[in-house]
Amino acid sequence: MIRPYEPRDKKRVLAILVDAFEEDPYFCRTTPLAVGMGHREAIERMLTADIDYEYSVHGRIDVACDNAAEDAPALGVALWDTPDATPGRVDQVSTAGERARIFGRNSETVMRRSRIEDSFQPRFPHWYLFVLAVGPAAQGRGVGTALLNHGLKRAGDEAIYLEATTPKSARLYERLGFVPLGRLPLFGSAGPNELAMWKAPRLKAPRDGERTPTEPSAD
Amino acid sequence: MIRPYEPRDKKRVLAILVDAFEEDPYFCRTTPLAVGMGHREAIERMLTADIDYEYSVHGRIDVACDNAAEDAPALGVALWDTPDATPGRVDQVSTAGERARIFGRNSETVMRRSRIEDSFQPRFPHWYLFVLAVGPAAQGRGVGTALLNHGLKRAGDEAIYLEATTPKSARLYERLGFVPLGRLPLFGSAGPNELAMWKAPRLKAPRDGERTPTEPSAD
Repeated sequence: MIRPYEPRDKKRVLAILVDAFEEDPYFCRTTPLAVGMGHREAIERMLTADIDYEYSVHGRIDVACDNAAEDAPALGVALWDTPDATPGRVDQVSTAGERARIFGRNSETVMRRSRIEDSFQPRFPHWYLFVLAVGPAAQGRGVGTALLNHGLKRAGDEAIYLEATTPKSARLYERLGFVPLGRLPLFGSAGPNELAMWKAPRLKAPRDGERTPTEPSAD
Repeated sequence: MIRPYEPRDKKRVLAILVDAFEEDPYFCRTTPLAVGMGHREAIERMLTADIDYEYSVHGRIDVACDNAAEDAPALGVALWDTPDATPGRVDQVSTAGERARIFGRNSETVMRRSRIEDSFQPRFPHWYLFVLAVGPAAQGRGVGTALLNHGLKRAGDEAIYLEATTPKSARLYERLGFVPLGRLPLFGSAGPNELAMWKAPRLKAPRDGERTPTEPSAD
């Protein structure tokens, strides 16, 4: 079953995420810029800030469990931004303090890269799957698929954007109706780079109250 | 047959474009900002600048004719930006003079709107079909489809972005493999607004010399 994240899930959810994302290209490019701490610690602190200040407040955190019991441990987790979020805006503001503590003199570089990555998200309303991870003990049991289907169902007719980090996950997303947009920049580091993918919205005829883009400044 | 635009096509090509785009939402929203001239004249001057300073120099202009004879008149035309172009950059610089003459005190507003519209183009490499038009006498003869297929074939495995202005054209593009991204903003005017659409690239494995995004500033 899939249920919303609760504070008691935190330790377990973080363990799953840190294990899963230790080799994630995004984190591998970013954590060398952390000051005075190792790769895993930097990942954990970044993810903690993401959960505490962004996703548990403004986004959606889905947790997969075996059953509804209070003490059923999290088997997998997915972090989503909603279509109302301007890519990166919430993240940049709410996690600024912790980012400064982790990256010190490199904060500016991390911010700039993050803004560039965000700029590759289409400017049309969409859900953004930031991360999806399944704990080692629960792999091969369809937990990832269940988390994904939960997100697809909630998105309904709305678009979804995500970055596939492996050819295998890209093929899975393709089977679910995603199409490639292109590859993200590598920022000078070695590949592989993420493949940005899009699940198209089903749009009704215009002018009936659907979400349309607002008219922000172009800059 | 489809062949590249030549200067001798200009009068005919402009006539086709102006007729076709007299009711185009983009031009209908923009031309009221022209100073001291009517709707058709403003469209014609904007398109002339687009052809002279942008598409005949930096883009691709495809012309459809009945045969290869020197005097075979243009039946339809398509204007494309190449994947090397940064959306709007060429246009903004090269047509600045003429835009200032057409829009006078409103130039700034037109520039701003144009930058916003450009910002909805995905930041991944793609061909952009700016306009495709078929003259009244040639309609119903498959000229539009021939122009489109020519562009699709040239694009090969590369992505294509376009804005469908009618539900009918959106359905046609969908049959050709395009998916919706979303609707463009209306800038306060009445609808319908254009539907932005995307034909996904076929990407080879990374790191074999394919086009990847450069790393521009996020702003």
